[in-house]
Order: sequence, then structure tokens, then C-alpha cells
Amino acid sequence: MTKPRVLTGITTTGTPHLGNFVGAIRPSIAASRDDSTESFFFLADLHALIKCQDPSLVRQSSKEIAATWLALGLDTERAVFYRQSDIPEITELTWVLCCNAAKGLMNRAHAYKAAVQVNEEAGEDPDYGITMGLFNYPILMAADILLFNAQRVPVGRDQIQHLEMARDIAQRFNHNFAELFTLPEAIVEEHVAVLQGLDGRKMSKSYSNTIPLFLPEKQLRKHINKIKTNLQEPGEPKDPADSTVFQIWAAFASAGETARMRREFEAGIAWGEAKRQLFELVNGELAAARERYQELMANPGHIEQVLQRGAERARSISAPLLRQVREAVGISPMS
Amino acid sequence: MTKPRVLTGITTTGTPHLGNFVGAIRPSIAASRDDSTESFFFLADLHALIKCQDPSLVRQSSKEIAATWLALGLDTERAVFYRQSDIPEITELTWVLCCNAAKGLMNRAHAYKAAVQVNEEAGEDPDYGITMGLFNYPILMAADILLFNAQRVPVGRDQIQHLEMARDIAQRFNHNFAELFTLPEAIVEEHVAVLQGLDGRKMSKSYSNTIPLFLPEKQLRKHINKIKTNLQEPGEPKDPADSTVFQIWAAFASAGETARMRREFEAGIAWGEAKRQLFELVNGELAAARERYQELMANPGHIEQVLQRGAERARSISAPLLRQVREAVGISPMS
Repeated sequence: MTKPRVLTGITTTGTPHLGNFVGAIRPSIAASRDDSTESFFFLADLHALIKCQDPSLVRQSSKEIAATWLALGLDTERAVFYRQSDIPEITELTWVLCCNAAKGLMNRAHAYKAAVQVNEEAGEDPDYGITMGLFNYPILMAADILLFNAQRVPVGRDQIQHLEMARDIAQRFNHNFAELFTLPEAIVEEHVAVLQGLDGRKMSKSYSNTIPLFLPEKQLRKHINKIKTNLQEPGEPKDPADSTVFQIWAAFASAGETARMRREFEAGIAWGEAKRQLFELVNGELAAARERYQELMANPGHIEQVLQRGAERARSISAPLLRQVREAVGISPMS
Repeated sequence: MTKPRVLTGITTTGTPHLGNFVGAIRPSIAASRDDSTESFFFLADLHALIKCQDPSLVRQSSKEIAATWLALGLDTERAVFYRQSDIPEITELTWVLCCNAAKGLMNRAHAYKAAVQVNEEAGEDPDYGITMGLFNYPILMAADILLFNAQRVPVGRDQIQHLEMARDIAQRFNHNFAELFTLPEAIVEEHVAVLQGLDGRKMSKSYSNTIPLFLPEKQLRKHINKIKTNLQEPGEPKDPADSTVFQIWAAFASAGETARMRREFEAGIAWGEAKRQLFELVNGELAAARERYQELMANPGHIEQVLQRGAERARSISAPLLRQVREAVGISPMS
């Protein structure tokens, strides 16, 4: 029996920040150490092309994301870690799946419908500015998953529909040609830690309110000092539930340390002091990984080697499966 | 200066017939001998998947089409002859082009619109039964062409729009990223010989009225005997302009022999005798190639070798271009 496969893609369009670390990277790396499953992580650079037409940004983001996961201790002997665009079988399968995916199914994809709604509200043509990349996105995602027969795909609520589409397309193929694909299951993380950003809204690239994960120490301190707080004076009791500083604290501290800080808030800790302690905590937690990160960023050749080994391992699975797919649809070599 | 490249794809969903031979194969093979151009011919098996879900048919058709072109003397040292699905760069480029193709452009594709119209007339959902393969078809075709920087693409009138789409997508890419793609030109063959089939309508797989090109001699005779004629008796003058027999004759005979047959028609040749002569002519023209065809069909390993050599030559062009494309959009290896 092979172990159940868990597959996660990371779109390469931004710099990892504290919110990504707490909500996704840290739990994923922890989960990848679970010996009862087999983990696949990939840099989703083909997906990045949908939203980003700036090559230097895609390139830089790929490097930063790979360096981040490696610096934080992703065990690449255990997990299969690769770059999507190094696996030619993914786009080959995408085409075969296109021929098995109803256009009507894509018409109903949330991301596409949301873009259409924006256009309609603006009085534009419904498809204004929408590329075929966006429209085909669920099929590429289905190929990412089905090519490795991943059983479990951790996703946010907004991605459940895409998993259903992948299942639908897989079923259609299995029915028309051969039972080659496992139907993947969405693992919806109900308790994902969501961090607030500098302005108190969810920490997100889209709001430009992030604290990048591996800022140099001085800048990390500056960013933490910029976290929005209320005007309460030192000595006034403060509400932890209402505070981004406390929320980030809780995401990094032990239970005991979190209880202590809660008492300090009630006792009226000054914002400056709370931020100083937060900086020490976060910095302490990240300092060693940051050093590894900086070494990796200075040595992209090494990252590339790791990715190439990952691609080899990934292709040792994807190439034989694609051969079966080709055989099933009739485009295999003659004999 | 490289020679202008001429690129032709042959969809692998049927058995070559006399109409294909006269209208496409014979002139293409002749054109490939023109030393002022460089010819690319490919078995469009990824396109075949759009319309055909029968793997054995796609497989058989690929073999028959390859054997046919080789038997008829395609010079594979001169022309580059390959199978589309052997060139992984084609689907990789397809994805990159998807991200540069407006969905609105695809909405206007004739083939898609025709399918929608059929649905609407039948009172169905507009996208009923339409796959993403059909909807994406012009982008795959653009990748086929742009990946080899083909300057000239011989097409029928119904394909002109697809060439315009390929130009549009190429321009968008060139503008957004880097001037990598040549804008291809449609070469519309105004004087393509169109043969009538057994029933007098255009010879076409869709009408099941074809005479397969390499039928065994006995069956070729039978098929020719089945060509629909009028009820005119021997001795009655016959109108060559109105006769499928005469039309096929003219497609195979020399000018002198055509003039002679015209006189025979005017002199009232019997249909049976006209068909007997037609059989002799066509059979004489095809006999040697048919023998080579049968040898090739019995030796698919040899066809496969030829296609693999072709794929190597094709990839020596497509792989470096795709590397440039990757570099331009930001998904190249790190350094």
C-alpha cells in the first residue's frame, strides 16, 4: 500500500510574510513530517503567470519561496519539492483534460464569475481583460493534482469548488478511457490561523500590510513598531482580543508565555514595551532560519539543485502515469 | 538567412482518401521539394483528441497517415516530419499563450460559435457538449505555429481566423515580454482541387462517401464501380462537367489523357468502360506507393523511428525557443 499523498502548491507571486508562515508554511512543514502520508509541495509558477506579467517578480518570488521553505526545515528527502514548470507532463495532461472538461463547468468557476461580475458592474464587456489563463485555471489545477494521484489537497474554502471540478474531470476521463485517476479530496482547514496585518486587517499582499518573514533584524523591528494600536496610555488595562500585537504574540509564543502576556495586557503594559517583547520573541524564533534563508538567497545554484532533484523524483511518478494516459487516449508510440 | 518555414498539421482522425491525396497530400509533398522553403509536417494527434474519443481510431489514423505520407515519397531528410504529442514544448507554450490570449477572442472563434448555434437551435444550453478542448483549440494551433516561428501556414478559408488569432496572441506576447515570435501568414490555397465522392457530393469522411487512398486493388475497383452516374446508355454523349468519374480522371491524368477522355465522353463512352479506364489509371498511379504503404503498415516500428528522428529535429528548434519563452516570462532556472 502506498501512503496517501498530500499535495500543496504555492503560487509564486509574492514574498512570504508572517501570515503565510503562521497560516500555511509552519503547519505544512510540520505535517510533512507525518510518516503516515507522502507530501508533495510545488512552486506553482505556471499559475503565477495568470496574474503576474512581471517576469522579475515571478522569478524573485520563486527564489524567495523556495529559500523560505528550505530555511524553515522542509525535509526534501521526505517531501517531494519541485517547480511546476519543470514537469512537462503537467501541461501535457492539462491538454488531455481540456478535452474531457465541459466548457459549461468552467463557466461556473467562482474566480471567473467574480471577474465577470466586476466587469458587469463597471459596465464593461463581461469578459473584459479576462485571459484564457484565468478561464483554464481549474484545469491546470486538476492536472497538478491528478498527475500525482494526490488523495488529499489542503485548501481554503474558496478552493473547494476547484477540487470538485478536478473530481468531475477525473471521473469523466476514468469513465471514457481508463480508471487512471484517483479522485482527490479537499481537506478544508477550518482552524487556519489568520494573522492581522500592520493596519489590523487580515495580513495580505493585497492590502500591502504585511510583515515579510525574513526581514533583516532592524527592519523587522521597524515593521513591528508600525503595527497599529489604539491610544491607550501605559498603565491602562488593554484588551488582548482587540490587539494585533497580542495576536501575533499568541501565534509565536508558548501557551505559558501567552498567558503571561495576557496578564501584562490586563496590567496595562505600554504599547512600546509590548512591541519590544514581540520583536524579541519573533526575532528569536526566526533568527536561525533567517540566516539559512540569507545563505540560500546568496546561493541560488543550490536551490536550483534541490529543485532539480525534486523534479526528478516528481517525474519518476508523473512520466509513467502520463504514458498510461497517452496509451489510453490513443497518442502513444506505434508498435 | 533561414529559409521561410511552411508548417502543416494533419489531424489524425481518419483514413486518407483520394480527395485528401489530390487536394492536400500530393501538392504538399511537391511543395516540400521546393528548396527555397523549409517544410514542417506534423501528425496533429492532440487536435484529434478534441473530436475523437476512440483511442484505437486515433492510433490507427496516426499510423495510416504517417505511412501514407512516407509511401508517397515525403522526403524526411528535407522536411521535418513529427508527431505533435512528441513535442512537449507545444503544450508548455500553449499554457503560456493561454495567459496571453483574451477569452473574448476565443468567444468569437467560428468553430465554437457554430457549435453554440447548433445548441441554441436545438433549444439546448449554448455550451452543451462543448469541451474546453474545442474552446482552446485556436490556442493550441497558435502554439503549433509560433513554436517553430513558421512564416507560412497553408490553410483553407475556414482557418484564416485561427491564423489571425495566432498573430494576435503572438503580438500580445511580443509586446508584453520579448520579441520572440514571428507573425505567421495564412497561405490560402484558392485553387485546391476538391474531389467529389461516391455520391457526387464533396469527398469527405463526414459524408462516408470516400475512396480510401490505399485500398487493395480489388476493393479499389469495387469502390470505383460504385461511383454514382446518371442513367445514360452507352453511345449517348455524356457531360464531363457533370461527372465524378471524369473529375477524378482529370485529377490523375495528364492534360493529353484528359483531353482524350473528354472526347470519349462526347462520343458516348459506356459508364462501365469509363470506370474501367479510371480504375486502371488510378491503380497505375498508386500501385507502387500502395506496396510501400503496405510494407510500412506492417512495420510500424520503422514509422516510429522516422517520427522519433523527426521529433528530435523539431525539438532542436522548439526546445531553445521555449527556453527563451520561459526566461521572458520568469519561469526559468535560478542562477
